[in-house]
Amino acid sequence: MRIGELSAKTGVPAATIKYYVREGLLSGGERRGHNQVEYGEDHVRRLRLVRAMVEVGSVPIAKVREVLAEIEEPDRDIDSTLGVASRALSQHRVPNERPAAEDLELARDIVRRRGWHAVPLDHGSIWALADAIGRLRELGLADMVDMTGEYARAAEIVAEFDLTLLSLRQDRDEILEAMVVGTVLGDAIFESLRRIAQIEVSARVYQRGQRDPIEDESLSSLMDSNCAGQRPPPRLFMREWQCLHLSGF
Amino acid sequence: MRIGELSAKTGVPAATIKYYVREGLLSGGERRGHNQVEYGEDHVRRLRLVRAMVEVGSVPIAKVREVLAEIEEPDRDIDSTLGVASRALSQHRVPNERPAAEDLELARDIVRRRGWHAVPLDHGSIWALADAIGRLRELGLADMVDMTGEYARAAEIVAEFDLTLLSLRQDRDEILEAMVVGTVLGDAIFESLRRIAQIEVSARVYQRGQRDPIEDESLSSLMDSNCAGQRPPPRLFMREWQCLHLSGF
Repeated sequence: MRIGELSAKTGVPAATIKYYVREGLLSGGERRGHNQVEYGEDHVRRLRLVRAMVEVGSVPIAKVREVLAEIEEPDRDIDSTLGVASRALSQHRVPNERPAAEDLELARDIVRRRGWHAVPLDHGSIWALADAIGRLRELGLADMVDMTGEYARAAEIVAEFDLTLLSLRQDRDEILEAMVVGTVLGDAIFESLRRIAQIEVSARVYQRGQRDPIEDESLSSLMDSNCAGQRPPPRLFMREWQCLHLSGF
Repeated sequence: MRIGELSAKTGVPAATIKYYVREGLLSGGERRGHNQVEYGEDHVRRLRLVRAMVEVGSVPIAKVREVLAEIEEPDRDIDSTLGVASRALSQHRVPNERPAAEDLELARDIVRRRGWHAVPLDHGSIWALADAIGRLRELGLADMVDMTGEYARAAEIVAEFDLTLLSLRQDRDEILEAMVVGTVLGDAIFESLRRIAQIEVSARVYQRGQRDPIEDESLSSLMDSNCAGQRPPPRLFMREWQCLHLSGF
């Protein structure tokens, strides 16, 4: 296909496609005589992969090139390739300086309390976690740090499925692509679902009657101890003022 | 305190502080005679809040201003204020054009299957979810779409705690700040924990013996059906080549 068709198929402007080719993120098409360059399905697929990283994951071009170079290194063992890709895709979260010892310790506690032992305690993701925890502390939201254990429980559910998805793939390139796309789009999907779930949960708190039983005991008791007697949390994002009975203003 | 101390306390360079004041994200300090401006604890707190949004959430300055303006509107009902803040903080995920009908339907199915009914079906987060789903489809990863239901389950666990955190707060400003910070830092924390959990889960798959029992039945059977006989998923990010027995290369 011509570049116009490639652009239409992928939603990437022709100028951007040419830029990606110059930047080495995409192989040039096949020259067919004067001013004719042919692109194939490989280009479509690769372009969508690049797009997912750049547009959804906001991965810098240089990092995208790094990930793609790894993917194209057939002799590299897939384990280290996945490692490189994962680090490249997470790097925007990893702080440049070592986090405060106190925050690193808090992050490691969360990992240990969850019974996690495989991750190196100086892994970039531990640093990223410690960095976020430090900001929570600075902002006087230490109680959110205590609750991070529940985030870890949820993260494990997601990770189980992430790994299942990889296990369903046999081909090396497919595994790598699924990992890259799954990492980037998985974050986006979870963020959206978290926002939606917040709306649902807050609606339930206001309609105790219709409320589904909460699976998690400790949580339900926690919710009750917070909500019983006291006012429930504000009903989020619903614009239904009559549902709000907040004291203090 | 002087601007130098404010900068030291918050880790924000003096030039950036002045920029934030010019941009209206931070009130100017109190003038005390010639070349002396005093800042207080309110400035420290506000600066950290701005920093969380700008640095961690990558929220554009204009959006930060929007959120802060809402927070400072004491007469506005907290429900709509939370809505404005939430939209501002999620906007980078919401596509400009309406997603394909097919993807919107897939997104709504996930919401319905989870038994969620409170969220408006054209909510920005539904659009964001549909957008991500569309990219998965384009990339031929439709099976990831089917699994998004488990993501929703995990998102509900996180959302229950997000709401609990708000319910622990009485003061309007505290509720709003906890929501803004919790949204931005919560995403960062979950991303890090997901990466860590992937390492842990993949390590477990390789050490079936030491593997903790999986709470979720459907998952454990799914994992088993995938892993039994077949090769397990690659052991992620561990650089332990000897653990890999991948066929095909």
